[in-house]
Amino acid sequence: MDSDNNAPASEQRRGLLKQLALAGAGLAASGATAAAPVSRSSVRHWDRETDVLIIGSGAAGTSAAIDARRAGAEALMLEREHIPGGSSSISGGVCYLGGGTPLQKALGFDDTVEAMTTYMLAASAPYASEDKIRLYCESSLEHFDWLIANGVEYAQKFSPEKEISIPDGSLYYSGSEKTWPYRNLAKPAPRGHVPPSQHLTGGRELMRALLASAERLGARLEVRATGERLVVESDGSVAGAQVVVGGKTAFIRARRGVVLAAGGFIHNPEMVKLYAPELARCQTPWGRAGDLGIGIRMGMGVGGAVLRMHHGFVITPMYPPESILKGIAVNQRGQRFVPEDGYYGLVGHEIAYKQDGKAWMIVDQTQAYAWKDFRLPIAAQAPTIAGIETQLGMPEGALVQSVDYYNRHAAKGNDPLLHKAKDYLAPIKQAPFTAYDLSTDQAFTPVHTFGGLQTTLDAQVVDAWGEVIPGLYAAGRTSAGLPVAPYMGSGISIGDCTYFGRRAGRHAAGRKA
Amino acid sequence: MDSDNNAPASEQRRGLLKQLALAGAGLAASGATAAAPVSRSSVRHWDRETDVLIIGSGAAGTSAAIDARRAGAEALMLEREHIPGGSSSISGGVCYLGGGTPLQKALGFDDTVEAMTTYMLAASAPYASEDKIRLYCESSLEHFDWLIANGVEYAQKFSPEKEISIPDGSLYYSGSEKTWPYRNLAKPAPRGHVPPSQHLTGGRELMRALLASAERLGARLEVRATGERLVVESDGSVAGAQVVVGGKTAFIRARRGVVLAAGGFIHNPEMVKLYAPELARCQTPWGRAGDLGIGIRMGMGVGGAVLRMHHGFVITPMYPPESILKGIAVNQRGQRFVPEDGYYGLVGHEIAYKQDGKAWMIVDQTQAYAWKDFRLPIAAQAPTIAGIETQLGMPEGALVQSVDYYNRHAAKGNDPLLHKAKDYLAPIKQAPFTAYDLSTDQAFTPVHTFGGLQTTLDAQVVDAWGEVIPGLYAAGRTSAGLPVAPYMGSGISIGDCTYFGRRAGRHAAGRKA
Repeated sequence: MDSDNNAPASEQRRGLLKQLALAGAGLAASGATAAAPVSRSSVRHWDRETDVLIIGSGAAGTSAAIDARRAGAEALMLEREHIPGGSSSISGGVCYLGGGTPLQKALGFDDTVEAMTTYMLAASAPYASEDKIRLYCESSLEHFDWLIANGVEYAQKFSPEKEISIPDGSLYYSGSEKTWPYRNLAKPAPRGHVPPSQHLTGGRELMRALLASAERLGARLEVRATGERLVVESDGSVAGAQVVVGGKTAFIRARRGVVLAAGGFIHNPEMVKLYAPELARCQTPWGRAGDLGIGIRMGMGVGGAVLRMHHGFVITPMYPPESILKGIAVNQRGQRFVPEDGYYGLVGHEIAYKQDGKAWMIVDQTQAYAWKDFRLPIAAQAPTIAGIETQLGMPEGALVQSVDYYNRHAAKGNDPLLHKAKDYLAPIKQAPFTAYDLSTDQAFTPVHTFGGLQTTLDAQVVDAWGEVIPGLYAAGRTSAGLPVAPYMGSGISIGDCTYFGRRAGRHAAGRKA
Repeated sequence: MDSDNNAPASEQRRGLLKQLALAGAGLAASGATAAAPVSRSSVRHWDRETDVLIIGSGAAGTSAAIDARRAGAEALMLEREHIPGGSSSISGGVCYLGGGTPLQKALGFDDTVEAMTTYMLAASAPYASEDKIRLYCESSLEHFDWLIANGVEYAQKFSPEKEISIPDGSLYYSGSEKTWPYRNLAKPAPRGHVPPSQHLTGGRELMRALLASAERLGARLEVRATGERLVVESDGSVAGAQVVVGGKTAFIRARRGVVLAAGGFIHNPEMVKLYAPELARCQTPWGRAGDLGIGIRMGMGVGGAVLRMHHGFVITPMYPPESILKGIAVNQRGQRFVPEDGYYGLVGHEIAYKQDGKAWMIVDQTQAYAWKDFRLPIAAQAPTIAGIETQLGMPEGALVQSVDYYNRHAAKGNDPLLHKAKDYLAPIKQAPFTAYDLSTDQAFTPVHTFGGLQTTLDAQVVDAWGEVIPGLYAAGRTSAGLPVAPYMGSGISIGDCTYFGRRAGRHAAGRKA
């Protein structure tokens, strides 16, 4: 897809794939084990050159490639897997946008930059990246336009239901905006923007559009190509990278910059155990196979600082149907601890990080799933709450007391303890009762990582003193961006990937070659 | 204190101090802002040379100096402040030791390496450093002997009371060994070993002994001398350091290794906010002024990996007197969440990390402090629990319910919810009632940091791939060692400092010059 080359990009890609296939199945498993960066003086010759070298082809890398090309620079994306798109392509594809986007307006929703900012700051305290949140919210309308200009399409339809994905609409409440205490802090608005799709395939649509745009703009892509180490000049600036393409080591010079956009590290169990043990005890690593932490390690190797390495996205997907939310989530002491109608990333966070990974959803017959759901195993069933309590080994009378308290107030339409919205308030009284296991090692609990390299607003990687490492950028889950634990809502991560990926590409393109 | 020099070491130190004083008051505030490491090739000449250069003179640095000298290497300690000892010298001076130390045996306590290991592993899950814990416990008797050999003295007296320090005894239960669930997992034994001292000055006694031993052994010490950057060879190994002594930059060659033992970063508010925001909202940074993260940053600058940067020691000191523990600690929802008789570091951890920093201690008249205590402000006082609940803005009936549940069982000598020990069980019934504020920004809540450089069992700093950076060591709170959140008990940190400091000094001394 090089703009200097007239062959259609897709043909080039096919050609490369064929070439790689011919090279045999013996492609090197990435297994980057080399630690120290490569000194520029030890690189005898560059196998290839480009302006902006991008490690990774997910939403962050592709957005970097698009805006680097728009700024007139050459851009080369390397993708470790056999197809591009990264974990973004298996995500919901939601982008968190607000402040009055054309889609919000067309569907009759008022929103302001201020309300969006306030929500994001409050919902991600105390780890909120304030500068990044403010910039992101202020740029939200422009970023919406950018997505449209790059071929992302939205349907003019709002989905009122609480869903994991949206079957046929493009706008929905994707976070805890309507959940206490956030609904009192900032006026709620639906900010989840998602390409219409079925079966959770919004990410595929999003990446199809962005990859096609990158291709049209002349960005190059090489698949089955992975980064290994950065090449540094004697002044500490980054000159390029040692990579592996088709099983062979090569050195690629990056005249203007290297963008690390290689995802997080959820598929590297050793790193997860070391940095984020709370995630290690969650059931399902969620991401494409390339999420091995390679980009993060490459950056750390040259002195890049890392932030929030223990943080991640923990999904406890109870809904749909919403009816289950009329029950109560309780911890090992039989106590409620989170508004059950909160975003599933908020509920998952509270369980994983604050309840030692253990919790149960207590429902009555009318609230239970109509079927045996694959997501939540049944931990106990009994004709009385006391029976549930005994089966779960909870302190004597503790769960009974919690249910009594909840029922007493739910009957009056109140929830003084956690202020769950009225729609989800109903006494738990119709036997038999069921306890679904919400524990992170028992329930279907997809997780991925949020920790990564510390970056500036222009996605430049900084060292432990906050000083920029010249020529080095990081975006998406290779960086420590907008998403922190607790996660504020679907679309924050893709929003961060695309927006700060763009800034990485643009800033790198503007550096002197 | 150089062994190659016949002048008595203390005289030398006085001479150096005088020299520094004459150099004027204008000593550079450390303010290390230089980011990249210094390349060896850019160092024109070394201002000084030693075998093992140690940045910091607390328990970790001094122990490194002692064992480097015992192994026959030169050792030079730099101390940023005007007197040596670091934060260790203002600590309680407790060392967590077990497995049947002579002091434990003399005072009639049975203990085993296995029980000690089991307790430490369980109490620090899920972040436990298993390898380090096992090695530390297996080496505990030898380490006790080492402390004695270096002049640390213990009194043959056991203190049965729960105390912050020990006024006149040398052995006590310094963690949560007797607290549920730990008492069921491993046979409790008192493992807090502390030099007899008054007014929390055990650390002064400990450091007095260790510094004197280092001096006798011929280790050198320079005060008002701080590390800034590491000097690296082209192969990535560490050759020495750029330091500031008496306001002047100097380069010190370390033939065998550099040991970073410069403490944590609790006095660097920018780092605390960035890496450990839960600690940023705690009232009192606790440590000597040198805890600025300089050592950690120096290590990160050469690619050293960091671990657990969000972790810290959060002290919620309610006792003495123990009587206050008969009350209950509750969160914003009026729920109990931690056994109140747990180690104050466990209670503090639960509040800071799991209850958003907010909690209260509810007591009746017989349980309240007899005086207005400086540690915990009074948040509410009322003739009824319902009155307390209202004043604290808790959900209607929630606290009343928690107190009722507690009282009902406490009257029978049980605590099914949190299994507080019988000694601390008593109904809360004698009006008036008091709520002490345990919130981390309201109560006297001393904190320091636990995050730091990842190290091997020999205290070698490793990079993001787990590979050793040759010539670089870290110990004490500059490293990610035994102490994690929740903190297991007093003496774990000093134990880690002294034991792994020794290993750093010994391993460095054994490297080829």
